[in-house]
Amino acid sequence: MEFTAQQLADFLHGEVIGDPNVKVNNVSKIEEGKPGTLTFLANMKYAHYIYNTGASIVLVNKTFVPEQEIKATLIKVDDAYACIAQLLNLAAQARPKKSGIEEYVYIAKGIEIPQQHYIGAFSYIGDGSKLGNNISIYPQVYIGENVKIGENVTIYPGVKIYHDCIIGNNCTIHAGSVIGADGFGFAPSTAGYQKIAQIGNVILEDNVEIGANATIDRATMGSTIIRKGVKLDNLVQIAHNVEIGANTVMAAQCGIAGSTKVGENCMFAGQVGVAGHISIGDNVIIGAQSGVPNSVASNQTILGYPAQNSREFARQVVMIKKLPELNKTIKEIQKDIKSLQKD
Amino acid sequence: MEFTAQQLADFLHGEVIGDPNVKVNNVSKIEEGKPGTLTFLANMKYAHYIYNTGASIVLVNKTFVPEQEIKATLIKVDDAYACIAQLLNLAAQARPKKSGIEEYVYIAKGIEIPQQHYIGAFSYIGDGSKLGNNISIYPQVYIGENVKIGENVTIYPGVKIYHDCIIGNNCTIHAGSVIGADGFGFAPSTAGYQKIAQIGNVILEDNVEIGANATIDRATMGSTIIRKGVKLDNLVQIAHNVEIGANTVMAAQCGIAGSTKVGENCMFAGQVGVAGHISIGDNVIIGAQSGVPNSVASNQTILGYPAQNSREFARQVVMIKKLPELNKTIKEIQKDIKSLQKD
Amino acid sequence: MEFTAQQLADFLHGEVIGDPNVKVNNVSKIEEGKPGTLTFLANMKYAHYIYNTGASIVLVNKTFVPEQEIKATLIKVDDAYACIAQLLNLAAQARPKKSGIEEYVYIAKGIEIPQQHYIGAFSYIGDGSKLGNNISIYPQVYIGENVKIGENVTIYPGVKIYHDCIIGNNCTIHAGSVIGADGFGFAPSTAGYQKIAQIGNVILEDNVEIGANATIDRATMGSTIIRKGVKLDNLVQIAHNVEIGANTVMAAQCGIAGSTKVGENCMFAGQVGVAGHISIGDNVIIGAQSGVPNSVASNQTILGYPAQNSREFARQVVMIKKLPELNKTIKEIQKDIKSLQKD
Repeated sequence: MEFTAQQLADFLHGEVIGDPNVKVNNVSKIEEGKPGTLTFLANMKYAHYIYNTGASIVLVNKTFVPEQEIKATLIKVDDAYACIAQLLNLAAQARPKKSGIEEYVYIAKGIEIPQQHYIGAFSYIGDGSKLGNNISIYPQVYIGENVKIGENVTIYPGVKIYHDCIIGNNCTIHAGSVIGADGFGFAPSTAGYQKIAQIGNVILEDNVEIGANATIDRATMGSTIIRKGVKLDNLVQIAHNVEIGANTVMAAQCGIAGSTKVGENCMFAGQVGVAGHISIGDNVIIGAQSGVPNSVASNQTILGYPAQNSREFARQVVMIKKLPELNKTIKEIQKDIKSLQKD
Repeated sequence: MEFTAQQLADFLHGEVIGDPNVKVNNVSKIEEGKPGTLTFLANMKYAHYIYNTGASIVLVNKTFVPEQEIKATLIKVDDAYACIAQLLNLAAQARPKKSGIEEYVYIAKGIEIPQQHYIGAFSYIGDGSKLGNNISIYPQVYIGENVKIGENVTIYPGVKIYHDCIIGNNCTIHAGSVIGADGFGFAPSTAGYQKIAQIGNVILEDNVEIGANATIDRATMGSTIIRKGVKLDNLVQIAHNVEIGANTVMAAQCGIAGSTKVGENCMFAGQVGVAGHISIGDNVIIGAQSGVPNSVASNQTILGYPAQNSREFARQVVMIKKLPELNKTIKEIQKDIKSLQKD
Repeated sequence: MEFTAQQLADFLHGEVIGDPNVKVNNVSKIEEGKPGTLTFLANMKYAHYIYNTGASIVLVNKTFVPEQEIKATLIKVDDAYACIAQLLNLAAQARPKKSGIEEYVYIAKGIEIPQQHYIGAFSYIGDGSKLGNNISIYPQVYIGENVKIGENVTIYPGVKIYHDCIIGNNCTIHAGSVIGADGFGFAPSTAGYQKIAQIGNVILEDNVEIGANATIDRATMGSTIIRKGVKLDNLVQIAHNVEIGANTVMAAQCGIAGSTKVGENCMFAGQVGVAGHISIGDNVIIGAQSGVPNSVASNQTILGYPAQNSREFARQVVMIKKLPELNKTIKEIQKDIKSLQKD
């Protein structure tokens, strides 16, 4: 498909600055822009690339004021990032959607296949499981017994969902993630650790997206709950009996220990660790690699190891860098005092 | 199944306080207790929930003294946590156990199938491998050539075990874990890194449990060894030629670098990193996210980055928080000295 | 196979010290050496084991000067580590190589099977994908649509490669890794986060090796690029639009956030985290568990959280340990000043 700048501007309710007839048939990053492609400028860190980008068209915010001449045709819009997202989604939807049941699948007796479905080769659907309409189960997926899956769900290759778990509507789970493995529960005894059976489950509410190779453990009893709208990145670990509040997002490699409750609309950067049996409020922002040992009130921005108010952390980092100098100052002071004492 | 408080108390050798005839048919968490369910109180952090729990029966320790009236029937026992663990295990054992060989499996010629077995669809068992009695191999498991697996072993969906590895008796490996991939060994050369073949294996001794999506690399030569009773949580990384001592437990996302030897009965919290070619003694406790660069003697409790004695770490954290104040004090001292010097 | 010390010495261009006729048929670690095995000494940390090793032959560097008598026969070579690597590779190549197509595979219509190939059971090859010669695809691998794979590539069990990704020549990908899952891109909206389609791909150039259960996300647009010769260990996370420069190596559990560019010949130790939208130069060495918030120039060695020059970090760690003492000193100074002020 090919579009002119004018066609795109009309579609995005934007204004063309430059040649309205220039055509594009692909998208590119601004720093790698090639003729015949569309790019965008949203993060001003990349603004210097706009003057020399090879792309034919650049989507920019209305508020953007160029500092020099720009070769490319511009389309000025209210929100360049939202517009590019809209175009990317259109492009993604243009990919043909798979349907039907491929060869070599294991579907337990009595499973009802919904009207719209894709079930890929080598996938396994256990006894008593329920599949919602418009389900896409890619190859090599394992769905244990009595799993309930809602509508418009996409499960990528190799995902494993243990028995009795519940997946809401409009959820997406990326390749290799494991939902509902046993929580890590052992009781010490003279004969070594004794396993504590984990008889609960995992519930993903609606609109949840889970990255690749993440792990969400089933509850000891009751449920590990991922509330609606939560987005978890690759290799995130959610332990048993944790609850993650609505619309909270966590970047890759975060780990939340057992029975902790995280509030709504939180943002955790990568590799954050949160201790067990604590509570994180709503709208909490946690910086990358922070370690959170205690409960945190709502609306905090924290950082560090142990995590604390991010401004205090920043001040301490500055002070730590000054420590060698401070040490020197103290030695000079001691000299001064000695010399004063001699007087 | 439904039980009265009296039946449970008789089974657990406990004493009923309240209505001995009240019935339960499920378990619940104390903070979410519903009528008709049994709950327990072991961690006193949750003690305040007991007065308003909706659960019909609460298991408590004999030593628990209520501060106000409790609606629910109590069963007083020596150890509420051990009792609930016992009941959970009974409940878990009540789940029907799968057996037989499902459709679409690849079993190399000459493999002896033990008397009691479950081999799930899409699983692969390579040449020369040996399977112990009472084995459960869930779907989509890969077992390479010449793997030896002991008795009473459960291997969950999607586990991959490379050739020549050895799995002891009573082991459990959760979904997606990889046992025996190549250790990370490369030698620099003018043409880039050259791979060093990893011709050793991995040995799991008896009673080992491995979480989901963990990785345990094969040795360069010899064996990477996980001693009896070790429990490793999800996403743990064990590098080549590591040895983990008996009954050591590691929480999620820990990483142990190559050739390091960890002692017995250690407890590592989540996201701990341990350097290569060092030695950790027995009974060592390591706090979450600690980074351990050097060998550690037995019976230490360490924490921090770099990890050190946990009390010293705590003192330093307090001191770091005071640094801005300390800096101010030093400036005041400098003024005082100047004023003294003028005198 | 059995070899005498003399045969090995001739092959490795080395010199025998001791019995040239002693025979070995296996390799061992120096600390576990058994009669009939060959071992080596390269890391001088292990030098004390040479005097009592049970191994029959020890490969040592020419420069090694024993401090006491050694029971084993020595073979002196220019580089003991390079020699053992050479022997290990010979041993690994002696393992029979699988070939052919096993039962139960899904290969889309029109896929050309290269002359030399192994395609294991339960593997899936999607429409339009291209496979290079001498390919080994182990069981339970997923290859989506339009994936291009070069020559001499080994893909271990359970690897998942999403549509449109490109794998160069001589690449190895270990079990459970996921190449090309969606980047973590969501735009906040009043109705919760809206997914931003990820329509780019992942490119692995030639000679790349990826460990087990690693994740490399596809680009939002354009490509996430892993340049030639890169080696990534287990559980490493590479986010969308990242570029990793040639011959850079990363140990287990490192995470690189979106759009960051890492240079050539870098070495990252385990569990390092790097922020998004920054740039790391060439030949940068980053210590274990470091957190890197900002861009780093070439040829730096950095460490810590936040990461900084490694010597400065070391100085600060020493200073932090001295803080309680420093605090005491300051209190003494205050006393001295008070007493001076009274004078």
